[in-house]
Amino acid sequence: MDFDTIAAISTPMGEGAIAIVRLSGDDAVKIANNIFKSPNGKQLIDEKTHTIHYGHLIEPKTEEVVEEVMLSLMRAPKTFTREDVVEINCHGGIVSVNRVLQLVLQNGARLADPGEFTKRAFLNGRIDLSQAEAVMDLIRAKTDRAMNVALGQMEGKLSRLIGQLRNALIETLAHVEVNIDYPEYDDVEEMTIPVLLEKCSFVRDEIVKLLQTSSQGKILREGLSTVILGRPNVGKSSLLNSLVHENKAIVTDVAGTTRDIIEEYVNVRGVPLRLVDTAGIRETEDIVERIGVERSRQVLKEADLILLVLNSAEEISEEDERLFETIQNMDFIVVVNKTDLPQKIDLDKVKELSNGRPIVTTSILQEQGIIELEESIAKIFFEGQIEANDLTYVSNARHIALLHQAKATIEDAIEAAEAGVPVDMIQIDVTKTWELLGEIVGDTVQESLINQLFSQFCLGK
Amino acid sequence: MDFDTIAAISTPMGEGAIAIVRLSGDDAVKIANNIFKSPNGKQLIDEKTHTIHYGHLIEPKTEEVVEEVMLSLMRAPKTFTREDVVEINCHGGIVSVNRVLQLVLQNGARLADPGEFTKRAFLNGRIDLSQAEAVMDLIRAKTDRAMNVALGQMEGKLSRLIGQLRNALIETLAHVEVNIDYPEYDDVEEMTIPVLLEKCSFVRDEIVKLLQTSSQGKILREGLSTVILGRPNVGKSSLLNSLVHENKAIVTDVAGTTRDIIEEYVNVRGVPLRLVDTAGIRETEDIVERIGVERSRQVLKEADLILLVLNSAEEISEEDERLFETIQNMDFIVVVNKTDLPQKIDLDKVKELSNGRPIVTTSILQEQGIIELEESIAKIFFEGQIEANDLTYVSNARHIALLHQAKATIEDAIEAAEAGVPVDMIQIDVTKTWELLGEIVGDTVQESLINQLFSQFCLGK
Repeated sequence: MDFDTIAAISTPMGEGAIAIVRLSGDDAVKIANNIFKSPNGKQLIDEKTHTIHYGHLIEPKTEEVVEEVMLSLMRAPKTFTREDVVEINCHGGIVSVNRVLQLVLQNGARLADPGEFTKRAFLNGRIDLSQAEAVMDLIRAKTDRAMNVALGQMEGKLSRLIGQLRNALIETLAHVEVNIDYPEYDDVEEMTIPVLLEKCSFVRDEIVKLLQTSSQGKILREGLSTVILGRPNVGKSSLLNSLVHENKAIVTDVAGTTRDIIEEYVNVRGVPLRLVDTAGIRETEDIVERIGVERSRQVLKEADLILLVLNSAEEISEEDERLFETIQNMDFIVVVNKTDLPQKIDLDKVKELSNGRPIVTTSILQEQGIIELEESIAKIFFEGQIEANDLTYVSNARHIALLHQAKATIEDAIEAAEAGVPVDMIQIDVTKTWELLGEIVGDTVQESLINQLFSQFCLGK
Repeated sequence: MDFDTIAAISTPMGEGAIAIVRLSGDDAVKIANNIFKSPNGKQLIDEKTHTIHYGHLIEPKTEEVVEEVMLSLMRAPKTFTREDVVEINCHGGIVSVNRVLQLVLQNGARLADPGEFTKRAFLNGRIDLSQAEAVMDLIRAKTDRAMNVALGQMEGKLSRLIGQLRNALIETLAHVEVNIDYPEYDDVEEMTIPVLLEKCSFVRDEIVKLLQTSSQGKILREGLSTVILGRPNVGKSSLLNSLVHENKAIVTDVAGTTRDIIEEYVNVRGVPLRLVDTAGIRETEDIVERIGVERSRQVLKEADLILLVLNSAEEISEEDERLFETIQNMDFIVVVNKTDLPQKIDLDKVKELSNGRPIVTTSILQEQGIIELEESIAKIFFEGQIEANDLTYVSNARHIALLHQAKATIEDAIEAAEAGVPVDMIQIDVTKTWELLGEIVGDTVQESLINQLFSQFCLGK
């Protein structure tokens, strides 16, 4: 395909040792060559692919030095985008990298849209859509496990499985075609139904297996949204600090919001806990009062897991009971804290209120019970399963939705076949399933969806 | 020299398209080779310098894939450190880049200290100390002008000038030596004093010229520390927002402090205004009351410039007069705001209180007068001088202090020579000057100072 030349800053913004401005497109090498001056006078356009060149960027008209750089020259097709790519490796720093970007934009490049480099890799056929989506998942991964899932998907693990299922469906459709084209051969009809049932059942079973990984996959990707709940002064902020301290939190500002709203990720045995509204907890130790009834309901509603903290040194209060009531239908772990103090809490009553949910006793002050709490969290997540490393996870909400739809249509096909519906009717459902699976890898997908997907990428990727 | 192999993340932390882990040292290529798997089986150790290689990082024992990467191979001596350097270009993202770093650390590299790559470039003789310091200034530059100063210094502009001065001093010392060795030749004595006076005066004049650039250089480097002062509700936060809005603020967290304390840089016609305690202004519109007498005095004391905002629609209050008193000995600009409202302020009185300082009338609401204010700020900074682009600036406090000392010792030498002091006495001052100038370029400098200087660098540089 034929595209213009795009450019963007590809490293995170901030003061750092190195920053990269990436160029991709037919004119990438020409543009870089025009603004580059090598100490020994060499011309970038004469150089081989996959080579590195030291020199200065200059304003071509005035010859004024703009930056000291290393240029990485990579010619199509063995590049990230399958186009000519030049990476300008300059000194980190906000002014420096912006100045380099401005220079390339003034000399013929266009500012890339978010995700446009990866989009070109997709449009130029280097990767399919699920692989492209995995690129962003990889960048946003909060734990090693999440990264492994993304890496596997990026390498085409999911794509291959989907391809296999789609092939099975194509074979089925071929059989059906024969049956429609030569209805006079009765034995074709007889042969078609068993083959169709076998292939469709295989596809359905694989989809079901994939969907079984989806809740874990989704949590690996997005984090287990976790709320620490409890009355004031039961030790919520200490619990938070303890989890953060032991596991090195990753704090990210949520794009487009004020600095106040931050997300904090804690990696608990491979499970990314996304701690919700932790700023509030830290500040006031009193999430329930602070955020008010309406807001707190909303926060709780969106949570995957509640850590309900009780004070072992006090009896269960009415407020505690109300908290139990509020979360009765949710996943929660009861943390009976302050076991270093004389116990006043009625543990039997706690058990009764907990209704089968895990109870962990802790003294966060004395660093007791944290390990048990972490094990308890990991257990909820892995549901006793031993993680198979070669499992293909689906983690992306779009993929999960498509798989659910594909499961429904393939089940329709199977039911119809079993009920003796004419094969040309069944063909519709099988085709639909094939298309739905194709949307996952971007084979049968609308341009508007592609644009929307890539717009959620970060700049420079 | 012989060093171990160091590694660090060289791009800013955060989610981005690309991150780089840099390795430098004798084993850099070997370490990278051990953990790298190319699709066509090529070995990094066999590859040429300044080439780029696509492949995967693997855990060498388990062969588990860790990341998909591009490796930049650069062999000594034509590298940043003059050692073998490998840059691992991986997918951006916090987990990904940390995982790559861990892998190289587990396979023989040591985590680099802050600034250690640049320190090696210095210790291996690629750059001198003032050039090394300029690397960090370049990264931290807040405006184009600041970056140009840093770039010039990095390219050796200051080093060359210092070298020239030191050569002049060495020549003088050679003359003096002759005079001391052969005191019986009277004509040597006669020749020595004029030559000494001529050379020393030249050095002194050049140092004076350099020092004249220092206040501008320092402000370019560190920003013009600016406080917006005024009674509540005179429009301080509007003024701030207007300056920020027009000029794109660069906001940086101050390292080692809480998130509350931020520095905000606004580029006003090439002058970086470092707006002090702007968070406070935005929040409460009332810096004076909020921070209390003690704190506000401190903030004012450290300011290079005060913008004193008055309300045109009110008479000058006692509080306004007190503010004028507080800042009477400082650089300030009076901003008479709200000229869209009926004027009640006595402008003659404002003039009297301003005591010759610039007065600008604005209606920030109606976007009037902002340009005049910006011009006024730039004028204070440039003091009517036309900036000469080929001027060598000194901007670094360490350099400025050394130049002041060198100026004092060379003046002592000149005075002594004029007073007819024996040349072997003068020799001491000339030698001292030569040493002081040598400290700027790192020629005559203590190891402890070197360590301290580089520790202020960012990681990975």
